[in-house]
Amino acid sequence: MDLESFFKDNGYCPNKYSKDIGEIQTFASTHYAQKNKIVLVTSGGTAIPLESQAVRYIENFSSGHRGAASAEYFLSEGYGVIFLYRQGSLRPYSRHFKAGNVLDLLTISKDCRNGTCSNVQVDATKMPDLATIVQAYHTSKDAGRLLEVSYHSLVDYIALLKASSEAMHLLGSSAVFYLAAAVSDFYIPLTHMQKHKIQSSSGPLELALHQVPKFLRALVTKWSPQAFVVTFKLETDEAILMDKALGALTKYGHQLVIANILHERRYRVVVVTKEEQKELLLSDDEQKEKKDIEQKLIRDICIRHTHYNKGTEV
Amino acid sequence: MDLESFFKDNGYCPNKYSKDIGEIQTFASTHYAQKNKIVLVTSGGTAIPLESQAVRYIENFSSGHRGAASAEYFLSEGYGVIFLYRQGSLRPYSRHFKAGNVLDLLTISKDCRNGTCSNVQVDATKMPDLATIVQAYHTSKDAGRLLEVSYHSLVDYIALLKASSEAMHLLGSSAVFYLAAAVSDFYIPLTHMQKHKIQSSSGPLELALHQVPKFLRALVTKWSPQAFVVTFKLETDEAILMDKALGALTKYGHQLVIANILHERRYRVVVVTKEEQKELLLSDDEQKEKKDIEQKLIRDICIRHTHYNKGTEV
Repeated sequence: MDLESFFKDNGYCPNKYSKDIGEIQTFASTHYAQKNKIVLVTSGGTAIPLESQAVRYIENFSSGHRGAASAEYFLSEGYGVIFLYRQGSLRPYSRHFKAGNVLDLLTISKDCRNGTCSNVQVDATKMPDLATIVQAYHTSKDAGRLLEVSYHSLVDYIALLKASSEAMHLLGSSAVFYLAAAVSDFYIPLTHMQKHKIQSSSGPLELALHQVPKFLRALVTKWSPQAFVVTFKLETDEAILMDKALGALTKYGHQLVIANILHERRYRVVVVTKEEQKELLLSDDEQKEKKDIEQKLIRDICIRHTHYNKGTEV
Repeated sequence: MDLESFFKDNGYCPNKYSKDIGEIQTFASTHYAQKNKIVLVTSGGTAIPLESQAVRYIENFSSGHRGAASAEYFLSEGYGVIFLYRQGSLRPYSRHFKAGNVLDLLTISKDCRNGTCSNVQVDATKMPDLATIVQAYHTSKDAGRLLEVSYHSLVDYIALLKASSEAMHLLGSSAVFYLAAAVSDFYIPLTHMQKHKIQSSSGPLELALHQVPKFLRALVTKWSPQAFVVTFKLETDEAILMDKALGALTKYGHQLVIANILHERRYRVVVVTKEEQKELLLSDDEQKEKKDIEQKLIRDICIRHTHYNKGTEV
């Protein structure tokens, strides 16, 4: 199945994201004019509706931690970042608040004037790295190096990915795609869906899901053919992981697959090319210090991208 | 199917939430000793895993807005609130940050001393009601009137609901259940699941889902039989909504069903008892002012609960 049929099959309205797509195009052409490198980071899960007025969805699990952390490290490496994320999933910098409640950091000033105590203050002792995070966020935003765009469903994700990669085409090999979103392999065509909420009184539920077309080939060969493309392979079974990663490189002809096992993903990843498999690990001490494996991963990818970018310029 | 079989069928480990359940029991007995009313507010969706090491889930859609807003209004009515919410869904008070990025409210002080500018400040002009929100949050927390407990999957939700309602039994008719979580009607038994991630290379996917046992009857008749119980009926089809709401009241014998249609849920709900159907609406002006329909709804429920509580005391 081709992508146009897939968009139609999902009832996608072409104008839905025209404002966001305009911003992505402006972002790409501004950074092109400034001779900057840019990366599209995709992050979070994708929802596939089970009803046309949907109450239920099939979801691929993702908190968005990988993508949000990675975006920060790309920004600190000097990249312009388009952050395409699932609504409600973690975002760069604000992800650091997620574990607790941001309200625990805020207090009302006891130093009241005119009888009103309306002065909200930050209790920075509760989050010692807060100033660094706030500073890094504003530096990226003020420099125009971070554009955040959100999606909800699978078809929205693919439409925004297509529009982004077409907009990034002009950056050639200076563009990186870092596709960390957890994308569904299956969907239900609109014509096969119930219109209204599926009723439990109708008894057990049988679902027949169709396969999503493989859009990565279109990205690599048509939408942004010179870009440096990084994809992810998440499995639960170590036995098939490397075969799946190498299989993807052969099938799509892109540059890197980051292979990882669900339960190890926060401290171990393998950077896979056709020639080598390089394991990146957090030591026990690094895990205790809550270091991000993404810091090592993005450093590794940026070095590879610099070589790639120079190579294709010759 | 009974609930014990359902827990087994889902591989639920009875000790999983023992710390949370201990806190719920302490909360209930403390408020009982203080002769306070308490409400259990459940909020957000439930996940049902499709694999035993799950990468994919079926989800009922819910941002948690209804539950988080309602918890705030119950707190302002003087109730102790146990807020049982889906990980990552909206929470009372912090929900107000959700639309934007909390980092946009924080700035680094330009009034630096000793050469370092590490003082984080709040720019309250960007969120005029921030002081009120912060004050209300701390008032509830400091008074020990808000306990937040999170869950992920459907079976976790049901286990925590059971433990909470057993703990709230001793409060009799002073206890309210406000079950706003979007609970799945279907699940896949552990023994029917694939162990590892379902492979897209195996072709289209067929899923056979089983029905979740109706635990509401157990809550109403056994776990907390004197409590005031409010459930929700969300549909997309107006034609069946009232029949479904009245059907639930007849089937389970509880006090209230709040009926709502997916696309109207933010400005219209119907409070349904066996005797009457009372529509609550936000006017156009109230919608423009971003008022919460939950303010009217919780006011209405609290009046009904006061009558109920007095009635059962006689």
